[in-house]
Amino acid sequence: MSIQDLCRRIQPLDGSLYAKAKARLDRLIKPPGSLGRLEELAASYVAITGELKPNVPRAVVFTFAADHGVALEGVSAYPREVTPQMVLNFLRGGAGVNVLARHAGVDVRVVDIGVDYEFGAVSGLLDRKVMKGTRNLAIGPAMTRDQTEQAVMVGVELATEAVREGFGLIGTGEMGIGNTTPSAAITAVMTGRPAAEATGRGTGIDESGRLHKVAVIQQALDLHRPNPADALDVLTKVGGLEIAGLAGLILGAAAARVPVVLDGFIAGAAALIAIGLQPLCREYLIASHCSVERGHRIVLDHLRLKPLLDLDLRLGEGTGACLGMDLVCAAIKIYTEMATFDEAGVSERNR
Amino acid sequence: MSIQDLCRRIQPLDGSLYAKAKARLDRLIKPPGSLGRLEELAASYVAITGELKPNVPRAVVFTFAADHGVALEGVSAYPREVTPQMVLNFLRGGAGVNVLARHAGVDVRVVDIGVDYEFGAVSGLLDRKVMKGTRNLAIGPAMTRDQTEQAVMVGVELATEAVREGFGLIGTGEMGIGNTTPSAAITAVMTGRPAAEATGRGTGIDESGRLHKVAVIQQALDLHRPNPADALDVLTKVGGLEIAGLAGLILGAAAARVPVVLDGFIAGAAALIAIGLQPLCREYLIASHCSVERGHRIVLDHLRLKPLLDLDLRLGEGTGACLGMDLVCAAIKIYTEMATFDEAGVSERNR
Repeated sequence: MSIQDLCRRIQPLDGSLYAKAKARLDRLIKPPGSLGRLEELAASYVAITGELKPNVPRAVVFTFAADHGVALEGVSAYPREVTPQMVLNFLRGGAGVNVLARHAGVDVRVVDIGVDYEFGAVSGLLDRKVMKGTRNLAIGPAMTRDQTEQAVMVGVELATEAVREGFGLIGTGEMGIGNTTPSAAITAVMTGRPAAEATGRGTGIDESGRLHKVAVIQQALDLHRPNPADALDVLTKVGGLEIAGLAGLILGAAAARVPVVLDGFIAGAAALIAIGLQPLCREYLIASHCSVERGHRIVLDHLRLKPLLDLDLRLGEGTGACLGMDLVCAAIKIYTEMATFDEAGVSERNR
Repeated sequence: MSIQDLCRRIQPLDGSLYAKAKARLDRLIKPPGSLGRLEELAASYVAITGELKPNVPRAVVFTFAADHGVALEGVSAYPREVTPQMVLNFLRGGAGVNVLARHAGVDVRVVDIGVDYEFGAVSGLLDRKVMKGTRNLAIGPAMTRDQTEQAVMVGVELATEAVREGFGLIGTGEMGIGNTTPSAAITAVMTGRPAAEATGRGTGIDESGRLHKVAVIQQALDLHRPNPADALDVLTKVGGLEIAGLAGLILGAAAARVPVVLDGFIAGAAALIAIGLQPLCREYLIASHCSVERGHRIVLDHLRLKPLLDLDLRLGEGTGACLGMDLVCAAIKIYTEMATFDEAGVSERNR
């Protein structure tokens, strides 16, 4: 199946499902709407999945890892070898995403979609390497169009397989030294905002480092002139492979009517690409948190997504997505486990 | 022991413990500070408890129920009999707090501290009834000073017992038709803000109902002239019993070096009272969420507490506290379960 075929399978939500879910929520023993965004989350879950009596879903976060040629330009506070080192830590269970996934009862799947390292046979690692990192976007296109489509399809296939296995909630995660640079470039192109506004400090460069990063991005945008009406063109020119994989994950989940819980800024850039390919995707997205990384607020405002959490996170990996999935599951339990006024013998409002 | 004796046992936090915890957090495999408020929470937990290698604590939410004489003034959207009806639902496990407590692995203890109903012998209910609801604050003092002190001591004793049983994290919950009225009165008195600003719509009265509620509160404040320098005087004059119990719970937990996760507006009013009695209490408090109820923002700003969640909740019962306790436990797991750079063989920052 092509990306275009997949995009055609994504349907708008049925508003009557949301209304039915809200009606049930209003019969539960609480003042109507008093559980606020938990009620909205539960109703969205029903509308997305079509399950009027949902079970608490099995949840999985996909952490896509890839390298970035642009890291050679000195845009990150950490050296490039950290990408494979962290992949090995994800597999050992000692990273932030592992801790929060265990806390939230979420599975973690680690995907090598483009790390510049030969892992050999490592238990637990999903080898979907498209290439050993992108090329340096400051000099030329990060990928070929064909490599971009391949990477998107990796995400589509992983989402499709996960749904077939019975997962009902999918989270986004990523690891890739340098990846806030292509994310900022994508944000600038897809939202029309200046590179300087979309570019933050990533893992912790200082202000002069950030200004250098802005210059690298601006130079690349001037060089490539990516076309915002062609999301795959943008992705091809700036990368990265994990962002392409995440965009595919979103498309695949939306086509299967499974909600996607977005992590932070890199996930937001992937969402801009997915929505560029199929605007209906937006209705399947849940923003877990608002990152400290400055471009993320721009992305969330552009997508009209209101984050659930504002905890000053900026780690990535899928850490915020795990906490967001925990809240989605809490919301579903509210919907299914609370008693109704009738069942509970509680008096309703004064007239 | 008297309330005064207890207040003297509450100690300021040892800043060196916070610094030690931060130092450990900075050795974990992530950019320093990149888990934001989760890191702050973990460090606060260490500083409060003094446990440099904490276990994930057993957590309990106390849901205090009581009635309010002022409900006769038509200040609530729900009839008074809902208080005992909801108590029975808490015991059956079908209320919002039960669902979210199960989700978060938190025990729920339901305390009748002043419901105007004879429950008889009901399994699971903690009978600590001080009186059958407060008197109508619009006409006279809600309680006697002695009843107020009794109700505070109920909370102190429950916290003390819970700590003795091994609970290491305590949440606040409440149920009481009419209880946003004394909470707004307390907020106005203790923060010096006008009653109109501190008074919201509670479970869902309309704007004309809210203006009536403001008038009732203003009349009571004019009548009683509660003394903000004497928190027990304020509590005596406006109530309520559950607010007194929660204030005691906070004092008891702080004296035992156990953090208290506050729920919404009523919990905030109780915190104002507790801090009025002993300002050092503040360091033991964690604000779980910012309620829709308008006075809550005033309370949080006054206490300089930044809520963890902003989910438009306004149910009370301890629902937000359960979600907050879940985040505290997640933060402690970050602190204890993540690998360090040394253990994990991950390269540190570029110099």
